[in-house]
Amino acid sequence: MERVDLFIKNARIFNVYFKKFMDCHFSIRKGKFYYIDYKKETEFESDNIIDLKGKTVIPGFIDIHMHIESSMLTPLPFCEYIGSKGITTIVAEPHEIANVAGVEGVEEMILAGEASPIDVYYGIPSSVPSTHEDLETTGGIIGFEEMKELAKMKNIACVGEVMNYRGVIRDNNLEITKFIEYIKEKDPSYIVEGHCPLLLDLDLAKFLYLGINGDHTEHSLEEIKQRYENGMFVEIQEKMLRKEIIDFIVEQNLYEHTAFVTDDVMVDDLWAKGHLDHVVRKAIDMGFPLEEAIYCASYTPANRMNLRDRGAIAPGKIADFIVLEELEYLKVQDVYKKGVKISQMNSLKKEYQFKEKFYHSIHLNKITEEDFKFKAPMEEGEVSLRAMVVQDGSTQLKEEIITLPVEKGIVKWENTKYLLATVFERYGKEGSVGYGFVTGDGLKRGAVASTWVHDHHNLLVVGSDVKTMVLLANQIIEQQGGMIVGEEGKIIGNLPLPIGGIMSEDSVEEVASRLKEVRDGLLHLGYQHYNPIMSVGTYGLVVSPFLKITNKGLVDVQKGELVDLFV
Amino acid sequence: MERVDLFIKNARIFNVYFKKFMDCHFSIRKGKFYYIDYKKETEFESDNIIDLKGKTVIPGFIDIHMHIESSMLTPLPFCEYIGSKGITTIVAEPHEIANVAGVEGVEEMILAGEASPIDVYYGIPSSVPSTHEDLETTGGIIGFEEMKELAKMKNIACVGEVMNYRGVIRDNNLEITKFIEYIKEKDPSYIVEGHCPLLLDLDLAKFLYLGINGDHTEHSLEEIKQRYENGMFVEIQEKMLRKEIIDFIVEQNLYEHTAFVTDDVMVDDLWAKGHLDHVVRKAIDMGFPLEEAIYCASYTPANRMNLRDRGAIAPGKIADFIVLEELEYLKVQDVYKKGVKISQMNSLKKEYQFKEKFYHSIHLNKITEEDFKFKAPMEEGEVSLRAMVVQDGSTQLKEEIITLPVEKGIVKWENTKYLLATVFERYGKEGSVGYGFVTGDGLKRGAVASTWVHDHHNLLVVGSDVKTMVLLANQIIEQQGGMIVGEEGKIIGNLPLPIGGIMSEDSVEEVASRLKEVRDGLLHLGYQHYNPIMSVGTYGLVVSPFLKITNKGLVDVQKGELVDLFV
Repeated sequence: MERVDLFIKNARIFNVYFKKFMDCHFSIRKGKFYYIDYKKETEFESDNIIDLKGKTVIPGFIDIHMHIESSMLTPLPFCEYIGSKGITTIVAEPHEIANVAGVEGVEEMILAGEASPIDVYYGIPSSVPSTHEDLETTGGIIGFEEMKELAKMKNIACVGEVMNYRGVIRDNNLEITKFIEYIKEKDPSYIVEGHCPLLLDLDLAKFLYLGINGDHTEHSLEEIKQRYENGMFVEIQEKMLRKEIIDFIVEQNLYEHTAFVTDDVMVDDLWAKGHLDHVVRKAIDMGFPLEEAIYCASYTPANRMNLRDRGAIAPGKIADFIVLEELEYLKVQDVYKKGVKISQMNSLKKEYQFKEKFYHSIHLNKITEEDFKFKAPMEEGEVSLRAMVVQDGSTQLKEEIITLPVEKGIVKWENTKYLLATVFERYGKEGSVGYGFVTGDGLKRGAVASTWVHDHHNLLVVGSDVKTMVLLANQIIEQQGGMIVGEEGKIIGNLPLPIGGIMSEDSVEEVASRLKEVRDGLLHLGYQHYNPIMSVGTYGLVVSPFLKITNKGLVDVQKGELVDLFV
Repeated sequence: MERVDLFIKNARIFNVYFKKFMDCHFSIRKGKFYYIDYKKETEFESDNIIDLKGKTVIPGFIDIHMHIESSMLTPLPFCEYIGSKGITTIVAEPHEIANVAGVEGVEEMILAGEASPIDVYYGIPSSVPSTHEDLETTGGIIGFEEMKELAKMKNIACVGEVMNYRGVIRDNNLEITKFIEYIKEKDPSYIVEGHCPLLLDLDLAKFLYLGINGDHTEHSLEEIKQRYENGMFVEIQEKMLRKEIIDFIVEQNLYEHTAFVTDDVMVDDLWAKGHLDHVVRKAIDMGFPLEEAIYCASYTPANRMNLRDRGAIAPGKIADFIVLEELEYLKVQDVYKKGVKISQMNSLKKEYQFKEKFYHSIHLNKITEEDFKFKAPMEEGEVSLRAMVVQDGSTQLKEEIITLPVEKGIVKWENTKYLLATVFERYGKEGSVGYGFVTGDGLKRGAVASTWVHDHHNLLVVGSDVKTMVLLANQIIEQQGGMIVGEEGKIIGNLPLPIGGIMSEDSVEEVASRLKEVRDGLLHLGYQHYNPIMSVGTYGLVVSPFLKITNKGLVDVQKGELVDLFV
């Protein structure tokens, strides 16, 4: 009798080719599926023989568009956790760490994930900074040469989301445009992922014409229809799970060109709901056929990323699979990576030691009350200023013109309904500070400070009281990163993020619990938002409408330029 | 108004994503589709504006498994001809020229096709010789190092069909096994094509386990079912177009894992019926849904070969398309390659000058009557010998034990019902000659000689009369290759194949007409076979059952060894 590493009897596997559940025995050799014995005739010798007694086995899930840093976790605990949920391969796009530390940051992320129990592929960050050095200062810049360098590295699967979608269809001299030309010249089939909300008709065609043909952003039905029609691979994240979208995909039989992805998952959602497995479950709940949902989380993402060695239970494919306790709700019993149960892997106890400099990424001197004193262009009277308006349900900030009193040349903003927002350049490059105001559904009192501020990740301090702002700012500098909330000179929630100022080395549970503390603190201080963490974390995201803030000042996103604080 | 290179109005295009015909205007820039304007709203300036008045446009066809040499044509006339039929990309596997001239032959084929109006990609010949040097002498050998060298060349799409399918699942020390390991180590998604008739169950799994997961050979329904079930990409050639197979693909919705291919097309069939277009038409005729048939000749073959820049009419894809005069019968009006009408390309007048040595590949001295004198292991009496039995409907040759008289130590075979078959080693390597006998549905009288003898392409001379055999053999040496038929000291059909002894530089029409002469000659001499050319051309194919002949002698294919002529 032939020997195999693992012999699993009486399984009911999901065959992605027939899109059917089929009874079989199956065996594994050297991490790959060997024989899927639908006739159940052949016996093998093995030290590992398992009788599943008819339990269902599906391929491991593959998430081809996501950002590990969005979870605030470092790669190892993140990957171990999602591995236990059934995600066995990811394509991570590390543009957050690239904003902090450039190519070196990307390299460090790759090293930090190397001992991961799951396979981590990478997209080349193509939009770092998200806009331009004139609008935001970042720790790292990824230009043409850096992208070339990154493309040579191991486990690079694609060019990550091209975000400057209005720019690339206009200006052919962008670094990213040059890079796409370069890489397509070398390999016309090189995969380039996009990010193009709202783009339609000829503009969409221009984007596709450049060879950028995947999109994971949020869309209307018309936008979705046009994307499929024009050969775009559509990546569905949780917020795209709407009935009309699902019905369209089902009616038009567009599974082949569809995959589920997660994009950004907050650590507390990760802890409470799960990862890609949650998206798949929710899709099924909303009427996406179960077989097709599994297909779009295994076969199609593998095909999209040209990872032809996985995404199916078939001879020669990598033996990544999930044993389900029950098919209903896809209740996971065990996850296997390369034929080994993830929960039993020795690597799980490993820790990654980041290079020293990643623990020291906040290059700022002590902040004082002076830093929040705000000079007006007059001695006494009232001044008109631009404020960013937080609105529940959105990360977009509208502009509002507000009026504040001026005394002895200083704007008197403390304890008004307008909170001062300051962004301190924290990479030790130019020490600039941007000022603005926030109003609307955000904080009503107290303060919040954060270095987790998409995408530039400078130090943001927002508050109504200087004393608390100074406290929080200095605590962040002291602990080299994090998100802290406080009031009346006291900290009421603190999530330290010492790795590059954006990640914690703690476990999912620990970070989720700390994040909840911060979230509860924000809610306690009157924040009205479905996700106050993401709301604060995107005040600085200058590719999201309309008025945002960086260390350079206020940015009019639509115009793509800096605007004066004083009107 | 924006300028484009070509602006086509009022087309009805086939959208591969929705698998539907859709009305639109479309435009082309720099050889790629630019805007597919389903709203028909946007006008463009162009020197080329065509109003198709509702005519149908489908993507150019892609043939991912075929051998140019099978047509006996050189790459340029071949590609020009199939280009006019709508085939705009091929993946050619040049193992015939590799048998004649090794890596240099492959390089020469690539150069010879460079000016082709269509795109020619290549599979790395992986089975040259088809078996082993002990069984057949070839001009070239492709081993591990040669495959490594070929893999670095431009336009290499895959490892071509691994034919020694029984060998690779047993013996892990084969050159091809080592090469697959090497190339998969570098790129686990590297495409490796197979050739595995009859392989089933665990044997099939072993083949797939090595990473060989495409097959284009002929199969029973059960074989086909197992191939799909186990994740094999199934390539359907004309002889696989059987009702039960088509019904199965349609019922099980297996289009995604299916493409049409041609494999080997004889030049007269090419002239009379067409190429991949003929296979597609025939499939539709036999009940394959029209939309899916087009899909399986464009989108799926592109996806299989990771040629993601083509196979669809969508922005950014290479503008390869067919304008149909009528949808019915897919009647072709014009074919466009990279946005240019093939019939109007300047390159069409080009000719390729093969390197001198390819015109001198038959290294044999003059053949004399002595060469066909056949010594028996006795002086007088009767001798028992093995003969190959030709059977109409098959290229397989069964074994029969025959008896012939011996006079003065010489076997008296002339003008019996048994024809002498001789294979002269023609590469100037060892000068060996293999002897055997042929009977059954083959020639009844006269003789045929050929250097187009799969796969070793040595000089085969078969006949019932020595005088004619000497004439034909020397004529072939004189003209450096071809297939000639004659009787009573006269040539009645002659197709010269001076390039490597297997190809002609003439046009499709000319070669087809010459081939017909030879075919008619064979029929005139009593050959009973649906394809006497292929029948003669496979006497030497030692990967096809059961008894075949090479310059080394008779080969028992199942055993994979030489056997004695005398029993």
